[in-house]
Amino acid sequence: MAPRMRLKLRTVFVLYFLVSVMGLLYALMQLGQRCDCAEHDQPYERTISRLRGELHKLQENMKKSEPTAPTIYVITPTYARLVQKAELTRLSHTLLHVPQLHWILVEDALQKSTLVSNLLRTSGLSYTHLHMPTAAQRKLHEGDPNWLKARGVEQRNEGLRWLREDRRAAAGGGGEQGVVYFADDDNTYSLQLFQEMRNTLKVSVWPVGLVGAMKYESPLVQGGKVIGFHTGWKPSRPFPMDMAGFAVSLRLILAKPDACFDADAPIGFLEGSFLQKLVTMDELEPRADDCTKVLVWHTRTEKPKMSTEKAMQAQGLGSDPTWEV
Amino acid sequence: MAPRMRLKLRTVFVLYFLVSVMGLLYALMQLGQRCDCAEHDQPYERTISRLRGELHKLQENMKKSEPTAPTIYVITPTYARLVQKAELTRLSHTLLHVPQLHWILVEDALQKSTLVSNLLRTSGLSYTHLHMPTAAQRKLHEGDPNWLKARGVEQRNEGLRWLREDRRAAAGGGGEQGVVYFADDDNTYSLQLFQEMRNTLKVSVWPVGLVGAMKYESPLVQGGKVIGFHTGWKPSRPFPMDMAGFAVSLRLILAKPDACFDADAPIGFLEGSFLQKLVTMDELEPRADDCTKVLVWHTRTEKPKMSTEKAMQAQGLGSDPTWEV
Repeated sequence: MAPRMRLKLRTVFVLYFLVSVMGLLYALMQLGQRCDCAEHDQPYERTISRLRGELHKLQENMKKSEPTAPTIYVITPTYARLVQKAELTRLSHTLLHVPQLHWILVEDALQKSTLVSNLLRTSGLSYTHLHMPTAAQRKLHEGDPNWLKARGVEQRNEGLRWLREDRRAAAGGGGEQGVVYFADDDNTYSLQLFQEMRNTLKVSVWPVGLVGAMKYESPLVQGGKVIGFHTGWKPSRPFPMDMAGFAVSLRLILAKPDACFDADAPIGFLEGSFLQKLVTMDELEPRADDCTKVLVWHTRTEKPKMSTEKAMQAQGLGSDPTWEV
Repeated sequence: MAPRMRLKLRTVFVLYFLVSVMGLLYALMQLGQRCDCAEHDQPYERTISRLRGELHKLQENMKKSEPTAPTIYVITPTYARLVQKAELTRLSHTLLHVPQLHWILVEDALQKSTLVSNLLRTSGLSYTHLHMPTAAQRKLHEGDPNWLKARGVEQRNEGLRWLREDRRAAAGGGGEQGVVYFADDDNTYSLQLFQEMRNTLKVSVWPVGLVGAMKYESPLVQGGKVIGFHTGWKPSRPFPMDMAGFAVSLRLILAKPDACFDADAPIGFLEGSFLQKLVTMDELEPRADDCTKVLVWHTRTEKPKMSTEKAMQAQGLGSDPTWEV
């Protein structure tokens, strides 16, 4: 071969050697860096996705259980008095244990109070805050026995009005799934009661303890049907039950938009004035083991004495009136 | 150059060429596949690790909050009467919201009752069920005003006795971390109250609403120290506070094993008979914003009327006596 060709070969070789070494170095640098293979990342992303899902589910469950369960709408009338904050506080603690519950608290007042607004805001509950004053001629006066005039009528009716309006707006999508319970702010409710009422087709009923000057009042059940009532006062009333002794399905509430409490009903006939627009006795659904267990009590709270407070105020040593008690 | 050398150069070149091409192909294949660089995975693993940590924390919090937080031991005397089950039910609902709480429920009875046993068992609370009857000469009789004799003394002392014994057995391992609160079964407690008392060095104090025939009673605080008491009855008593207005650190309870409530203390001096064995006024730790907020109320429940029940019983139509109300 000619010397020129030998030179050419050597040159080619040297050039190729240099290029290939540079290429090799480049390749080594590349291997140590970026890797954009989608299949490689997938196991990680699946794990992250799964953990995020579990986290979210857990957080949701902490707020409410089984979001597809019917919502219990609790309508509570309330009015300002010394024990109001205490009553609402301990009632809110009970309600806070019940999943899928919405509290409709209706103040007997011309406007919403700061006390109730703050209490609701910090309660942790899902709620609606309303107000509706009692008609002047139906207000109880100092010294009136508590049974003289039916109380809470305007407030319960206002709760029903709001609920009907709200649920119509939400209609189509399970907006009718729910049950309505009228819970006064001084009664005592077991947690089991709310389980019993949740699945109500029309009106479900159960015994109430310590009401009507009796150990309990209760529907009488035979063959799974209500056939009468155990009560000591006018047992021939159409529905001789206390407000705490029944719950109404939301569906029925919406189906009968004119059914509300009759403010002019005689004492003891208030619950009946509402229920007779909704069901007949044989349609009632007995709960609490065919109405043999007491799961709610008609407790009443003593009015606190203020004799010492008045005496202290007379000496200019009274409690600070700006304190919210 | 000799022909052999020329051959050698060509051979070297060819060999190098082949090897480098194979290497290049190999490198190309590698770049398209696995990437095992630790730095690349770290962001994913950090995310997974963080999510796992959050999930775990959330799950732990659902069971109990901060297992290393001091335990609140709530000592509650209780006695059988018509409203007992209702009172204990709603109180248990409040306590169930408080993490790291142990309820010591002491019946004024010769033996534990089924009613209380079942209630505690199904409450969801951590509890101890005790019983200790009130000495015969100190029992209130029908018609006695409730302030005539100090109540709950034997029961609270029994609670203290059990606690001291139990904590000594547990000593060594944080067994002394805790605070003791005497909660009557008819009062009303906010959830914030338990936060305020949890970290008590000796004795912490706060206002009590609707007690002593006043809007509230309260320690008076200046410069972070208790300097007196707002009360309407014998304000010169050493510790003119209601049982609901203070909590004692477990450490102090264990350090003073003889400190208990004096059954013979005159009315209104019961709390003081205990506290004066534990602290002086200036050692008291004010809570609730330097004793300016009411977080607990001395509510009392009406005794239910049974007039209709009696009338019904006379006709043989009374309520079923086997029902637990």
